[in-house]
Amino acid sequence: MLTRILTQGPIPRVEIARRTGLSQAAVTKAVAPLIEAGFVTDQPAVPAEADNQLGIGRPVSPLTVIRNSVSVIGLKVTPTALIGVTTDFTAGILTVRHQKLDDTTPDTVIERLTDLAKELIKSAEVTAGPLIGIGVAVSGDVDARRGLVRHSPLMGWRDVAVADLMAKRLKVPVVVTNDVRALTVAEHWFGVGVDADSFAVVTIGSGIGCGLYINGEVVSGAYGVSGELGHLPLAPGELVCTCGRRGCVETVASSDAILTRTRETTGRPRLDLAGAIKLAHEGDEHAREAFDRAGEVIGSALAAMVNLVGPELVVIAGEGVAEYDLYEERMRQAFADHAFGAAGNCRLMLRSHTFDDWARGAAATVIRSYVRGEPPLQR
Amino acid sequence: MLTRILTQGPIPRVEIARRTGLSQAAVTKAVAPLIEAGFVTDQPAVPAEADNQLGIGRPVSPLTVIRNSVSVIGLKVTPTALIGVTTDFTAGILTVRHQKLDDTTPDTVIERLTDLAKELIKSAEVTAGPLIGIGVAVSGDVDARRGLVRHSPLMGWRDVAVADLMAKRLKVPVVVTNDVRALTVAEHWFGVGVDADSFAVVTIGSGIGCGLYINGEVVSGAYGVSGELGHLPLAPGELVCTCGRRGCVETVASSDAILTRTRETTGRPRLDLAGAIKLAHEGDEHAREAFDRAGEVIGSALAAMVNLVGPELVVIAGEGVAEYDLYEERMRQAFADHAFGAAGNCRLMLRSHTFDDWARGAAATVIRSYVRGEPPLQR
Repeated sequence: MLTRILTQGPIPRVEIARRTGLSQAAVTKAVAPLIEAGFVTDQPAVPAEADNQLGIGRPVSPLTVIRNSVSVIGLKVTPTALIGVTTDFTAGILTVRHQKLDDTTPDTVIERLTDLAKELIKSAEVTAGPLIGIGVAVSGDVDARRGLVRHSPLMGWRDVAVADLMAKRLKVPVVVTNDVRALTVAEHWFGVGVDADSFAVVTIGSGIGCGLYINGEVVSGAYGVSGELGHLPLAPGELVCTCGRRGCVETVASSDAILTRTRETTGRPRLDLAGAIKLAHEGDEHAREAFDRAGEVIGSALAAMVNLVGPELVVIAGEGVAEYDLYEERMRQAFADHAFGAAGNCRLMLRSHTFDDWARGAAATVIRSYVRGEPPLQR
Repeated sequence: MLTRILTQGPIPRVEIARRTGLSQAAVTKAVAPLIEAGFVTDQPAVPAEADNQLGIGRPVSPLTVIRNSVSVIGLKVTPTALIGVTTDFTAGILTVRHQKLDDTTPDTVIERLTDLAKELIKSAEVTAGPLIGIGVAVSGDVDARRGLVRHSPLMGWRDVAVADLMAKRLKVPVVVTNDVRALTVAEHWFGVGVDADSFAVVTIGSGIGCGLYINGEVVSGAYGVSGELGHLPLAPGELVCTCGRRGCVETVASSDAILTRTRETTGRPRLDLAGAIKLAHEGDEHAREAFDRAGEVIGSALAAMVNLVGPELVVIAGEGVAEYDLYEERMRQAFADHAFGAAGNCRLMLRSHTFDDWARGAAATVIRSYVRGEPPLQR
């Protein structure tokens, strides 16, 4: 019930009854404790939004969540920075903090994450409701149930018990999640997922990731791994990936791979990514070739994913989107070359994401666990 | 309710109540019309099976479907043969008919399919209950909702309205489905799916296909396409696939591709598949190389699929399984090389399938549609 009001509200009781097949009396009964607990109200919490998709025809006391009834913290870990946000109950960002990171050893990162969380807790006390939990998004193989980062090639981590280590220090429930899956949860509950029956979120940047939403739920993988688009064996086998395998998409298409290639072919070993992007925009053929290679492999990977799971919509997101124009054409061409039959009808939608969105995804994961009453979060 | 009794029965009412959260009175009420209609009975229909997984402890009048309360026909179309089965309500095969095919034009095949169905209808009248429908399994891009084979490269078909053409002639509801998806439905309702939370069925033979069961349902694809493992762009780009694309898995791993390769490298243009298999078993290095190449690409494709959707279990099935020993080692090695992290924990299970199983899958699809009351099937 709370899920429905959160993701589809403001929504009148009669509409909930219609969509669930419950009687209106049953809906009223189920909603009462949510109103009493202060999560939900009979009136739109934000009057400016009363003019919503239900039209002007004065909806009969639509139910809406009280946005500031709780607050949530989302943290995103990258090798060079930590990003933290506090959000309200609808994953709306309230505050943002960025912190540089110059040491990726687990101990240091946990320490710095804890400090960042403390800072955000203080800020949240001023602006929002009681904190329900902290979400931490990390790239790689994450065992969310045990709160463990099993292997994050990008961070160089193996078996880091992030949730326990942080929860002990902060006395707040901590949830750890794969970063792309967090983004997918955010899209599912508060983004494109509200309207699409199935979708994929593909992130392009220092890693290539993919979150899948199929048959009514985010795909989590029986062993906690799924959506590893960056580790499909679609590239030539010469290069070894950060994960230790050969032929991964990321060996050609990650921003590091593009930079390395451009440095080699231009003979400029001190070039940085911004410099490589600038060169490519200026038409340097070596730099362009590196982006072309990346676009080709990303397009093939998108086709592989679409041929297997056939989503309605593919959202392309990530820090790499800034250079999107450099590989878009090749990517779309390779996608068209390899998408099978009607699978290729799926829309490729560009969505510019910032690092804040990743942190927001971690917060959305906390909100979902809280609403569902999943441990360690309880209402 | 019928679904549960069909896939989990024999099952006592009290157990249904426990699993569904309904009251026992509600279960009794829901079951009554099923008993009245003759689909379900209070006693095990086949006494020999009373000694079932519920143990000896005298289950309290378990509900079970009456197997012969309905009959179903399943047909599988291949370029060289039609295979037909009649089954009971639990997809148990009652009769089997094979028919050679020497012409794959849609008109001829529809005609021959219709004849085969008529023959099976006659046999079903003798052995089983009233016919509820006919399922037709075809490889390729099938629009099940419209009963249309959109594109079957293997058959050389485009936009063939199989369901309408056959239903008109036979006056029986006809359902058309992708063959691998049909096999997946059979595994979901009457096979490994009863115990696994997620699984993939991978078929190896003249085509390479894949059915996926994720988040409680078979993956159908927003545009009707999914599981096209044989058309992942994982092979070198020199060869053109039957689908017209380059680099598809099938260009190297289909039985035709293996045969073509062996003919070329051995310089024996008249070799047939049985001959190529024999050569490889005798240790001929050219023949072995063709199977090695196939195993390598199939293993990579399995890894790609597992990295994306992370199933609990992969069932390897299909007519190619007879030669399984020739590529198994390479396949497992390539899978191990490219499976990412814990995704590689999924079990690869070999399941020897015959063409009859494909036809049975088509019948299982009819049973599922019937129980769910999906058009064109109604109860």
